[in-house]
Amino acid sequence: MPPALTEAAEPQLRRLAAELLVVRASGHLADHQRRYPQWEVPNAELQELLEGGVGGVILLGGGAAEVALRCRQLRHWADQPLLLCADVEEGVGQRFEGASWLVPPLGLGRLHGRDPTRASALAERYGACTGRDARRLGLNWVLAPVCDVNNNAANPVINVRAWGEDPATVAALTTAFCRGLDSAGVLGCAKHFPGHGDTSSDSHLELPVLPHSRERLEAIELPPFQAVIAAGVAAVMTAHLLLPALDPGRPATLSAAVLTGLLRRDLGFDGLVVTDALVMEAISRHHGPGEAAVLALEAGADLVLMPADARQAIAAIVAAVEEGRLRQEQLEASARRRRLALERVADAPPDPMAAPVVDDALAQELVEATMETVHGGSALSATTRPAAETPTWPASGGVNLLRLDSCLQAPFLGPTAPALAFPGAAGLTPCLLDGLGPRLWRSDPDAPLILESLPPGPVLLQLFVRGNPFRGSAAAGEDWPAAIGQLLRAGRLAGLAVYGSPYLWEQLRPLLPDGMPAAYSPGQMGRAQGAVLAALGLGQGREVGHTGGRQGFTD
Amino acid sequence: MPPALTEAAEPQLRRLAAELLVVRASGHLADHQRRYPQWEVPNAELQELLEGGVGGVILLGGGAAEVALRCRQLRHWADQPLLLCADVEEGVGQRFEGASWLVPPLGLGRLHGRDPTRASALAERYGACTGRDARRLGLNWVLAPVCDVNNNAANPVINVRAWGEDPATVAALTTAFCRGLDSAGVLGCAKHFPGHGDTSSDSHLELPVLPHSRERLEAIELPPFQAVIAAGVAAVMTAHLLLPALDPGRPATLSAAVLTGLLRRDLGFDGLVVTDALVMEAISRHHGPGEAAVLALEAGADLVLMPADARQAIAAIVAAVEEGRLRQEQLEASARRRRLALERVADAPPDPMAAPVVDDALAQELVEATMETVHGGSALSATTRPAAETPTWPASGGVNLLRLDSCLQAPFLGPTAPALAFPGAAGLTPCLLDGLGPRLWRSDPDAPLILESLPPGPVLLQLFVRGNPFRGSAAAGEDWPAAIGQLLRAGRLAGLAVYGSPYLWEQLRPLLPDGMPAAYSPGQMGRAQGAVLAALGLGQGREVGHTGGRQGFTD
Repeated sequence: MPPALTEAAEPQLRRLAAELLVVRASGHLADHQRRYPQWEVPNAELQELLEGGVGGVILLGGGAAEVALRCRQLRHWADQPLLLCADVEEGVGQRFEGASWLVPPLGLGRLHGRDPTRASALAERYGACTGRDARRLGLNWVLAPVCDVNNNAANPVINVRAWGEDPATVAALTTAFCRGLDSAGVLGCAKHFPGHGDTSSDSHLELPVLPHSRERLEAIELPPFQAVIAAGVAAVMTAHLLLPALDPGRPATLSAAVLTGLLRRDLGFDGLVVTDALVMEAISRHHGPGEAAVLALEAGADLVLMPADARQAIAAIVAAVEEGRLRQEQLEASARRRRLALERVADAPPDPMAAPVVDDALAQELVEATMETVHGGSALSATTRPAAETPTWPASGGVNLLRLDSCLQAPFLGPTAPALAFPGAAGLTPCLLDGLGPRLWRSDPDAPLILESLPPGPVLLQLFVRGNPFRGSAAAGEDWPAAIGQLLRAGRLAGLAVYGSPYLWEQLRPLLPDGMPAAYSPGQMGRAQGAVLAALGLGQGREVGHTGGRQGFTD
Repeated sequence: MPPALTEAAEPQLRRLAAELLVVRASGHLADHQRRYPQWEVPNAELQELLEGGVGGVILLGGGAAEVALRCRQLRHWADQPLLLCADVEEGVGQRFEGASWLVPPLGLGRLHGRDPTRASALAERYGACTGRDARRLGLNWVLAPVCDVNNNAANPVINVRAWGEDPATVAALTTAFCRGLDSAGVLGCAKHFPGHGDTSSDSHLELPVLPHSRERLEAIELPPFQAVIAAGVAAVMTAHLLLPALDPGRPATLSAAVLTGLLRRDLGFDGLVVTDALVMEAISRHHGPGEAAVLALEAGADLVLMPADARQAIAAIVAAVEEGRLRQEQLEASARRRRLALERVADAPPDPMAAPVVDDALAQELVEATMETVHGGSALSATTRPAAETPTWPASGGVNLLRLDSCLQAPFLGPTAPALAFPGAAGLTPCLLDGLGPRLWRSDPDAPLILESLPPGPVLLQLFVRGNPFRGSAAAGEDWPAAIGQLLRAGRLAGLAVYGSPYLWEQLRPLLPDGMPAAYSPGQMGRAQGAVLAALGLGQGREVGHTGGRQGFTD
């Protein structure tokens, strides 16, 4: 047992422990604006933590302009350079309104099969755009790319967030993305090591098990990580996954075999190893907030993301050093890696008066390059389809039937969204289905929809489905193939739009008769809706807004 | 016909005309963030208009921190002090997230009947809070109080925005509100002259007719305006209403008889007369953008709010002076009134780094003072109800049936809102009814709800209903009294919460059996939900958030 620390050494050690934490904060300025108060510490505590040496903050919530103010404030509270990060995997606008919101990466993965050069070029621009937008907000660390190979269509948590379904595609596109990030002077983070692509449960809710051998991991899961490590990615994030072949006792996040053995030693990664959020149930259900942090560092992590309680984590790390469980030199090496990473990034504070900027050209090109339409029974990308053959939507009237997870969490479906406004302008009556409204489903497997509850007329079916964390598997309990059969037999299906999951699209597409207008976009944002509806003959020349009839000049 | 202007005089005249316009802009910094691009000019045009002398901007959209940045930007673009205003009738947080969001004024109007002293004191604090919050954002002109006497329960556009249902109450509370505004150094605006309280159609959509005599107007509609004018209100906003007894040809906004005859001469008002938004259909359907502005000035308005096209309005005003339709001296007098008003307000630019502040104590006291609960068949205000008699919600399970206008425009119903989370914690399954989902209504007048579409068990019914502009009359086509009868006969009604309209509450309350938990709040925000549900036995000790089960740490 090592000698007890001197009184002078302990504050230094506390500061060292604090430096290895990345705490969660709201992107809003005021405490009362926090959307998730149980995860986001109030400002007084946050300021105290930063003054005490906490080395990083992960932000969620707030618009682009507000987050720029927030980043200035956090920099001001800390007396050292901070890692300021966010989960902006699909452009900064995915999380912070006002910045560029891009189609999910899996769209480029699919494009890569048809046109690898174009897909790689777009992935690099995707990274450059994300990096530039992040810097404008004051963020210096982008928690992307997802390097998981999505080889399980039922994956509820990775799905469209992945860059592809095979290792070569993911490796090519994630390295291109990292080049783009680099060019903007922003750090990246490859996740979720050693690979979260083949899980069918959600680690936000439970601990998934990946039963693969080391050989299988080397063939499928590891190559993208190896590629971005070779390309110099600044950080790797661990997965909350149990891999019995590597470590039968501990999830990857807490496993020395995975982090120190596989990642550091075998793959030779010398950058920052950061855990995924320790508050996730897969970890927090089994370990207290202090112990989880100590276990992660013991396993070889440099940084601890979102400890359930930052003060407890600091105290537990200090105690672990005093007890000899952790060596202080290891923590110092981790802190050194953090500072080396920060030296790679530009350090000008953001200018909040600078209006948020969107890379419109890129966002639009991504939508067009990743959209798919049906043409004579076979799928074509939008760009290869003759423009003259764009269908014209039949006569006015009918139903605009939209399916989404929850109307209360649908940033893509504001009152002027094309998915509502364009069909509205063609006289279609909207009908929204989500998990919170009256169910349109009954138990008849051949006719599962209660069609009597719908307004009359032809049905435009728009399905917003993607595997979202916390929301379970995509469209569980909804038999859309049977519903499409029912609508076709009733002579009521007039068109199909799928936004998000390519797997649902591929399942439904073969069921459509020749000539039925149908299109797919991996994106769900308004821009994707506009392109898809235009391909269905519902977009051209339609003005969003006042013509919709329901739309006033105030809200 | 007067002589043509010299070349030197015309730019001066253009500037004078521009000074009398208040144009609409988004509260967001960037053009692509505009939510209503058809009403909100892009920044290049806005900057040009302000450089050209436009004297005011009305803002909508954006959070509190962003609007503070925006106000700095607008001040920077103008070379003169600007009127910066917003429709913040129910606290600044009604429009700009982060500031105080208060229950609608009609709640205090009802309290005034029980406790006039307390109601007046709260109205004054309401004004002071609104003024302070407005100044923090950089706004110097609050477009409130609504001085309309809501003496028509079917009024779709005023309703809970009014301070009462009789002239004495409205006069007492609006003057108290104005005292509060004054204390914060912010201008107010009495609206909608000469009184919009007895209309049953929405002037956003058509031109309502008020068939009352001058005597009736003097008895009911005018006293609150006279009271706030006597108290020194800075501005009066005109109504888009036809009052045949005063002017059979022109709506009040364009009527010299109303603005010059009644308001200026008879009521002796010497402050700013501003039109309601000229883009509203009641005006824009009948007059072009230039002509509407000229007609308003001709009638005696000083300022033109939201002309449909600012450049056309300026050109038309200049032409009207050149043609002798308008006298330049009149415009100069209006510009002088604008500058005099601006001299009354504090002129420090806002500090956007200052986090938004909420007057929690006032917001909570307003909720509690205006809430009503049923007790043994008679309504009591929450504060007079013995705490020990708060009911306990029966056993777990059942349905949380929520009715709202549109789930896509419900800022009061985020995923952690008490109306979802508290019943969720008691095991109730949510079912949301809005105008966009499948209908739960059928044509049977005795049993109008399709109960088979609901999950089983006792029903907590939560009705969010208020007369909103653009959305037509409250709960039209929904027979809630019959639905309550149906639920009672089926033995399924377990509790009732009404948020918003007191008229619906008063219609439903007598239908409830003794002992049925029921409560009403004029407010719809989370704070009101929490108080109402606590009164129903569903609130105490419940944590919003993680316990809800569906709630993750990200969105």
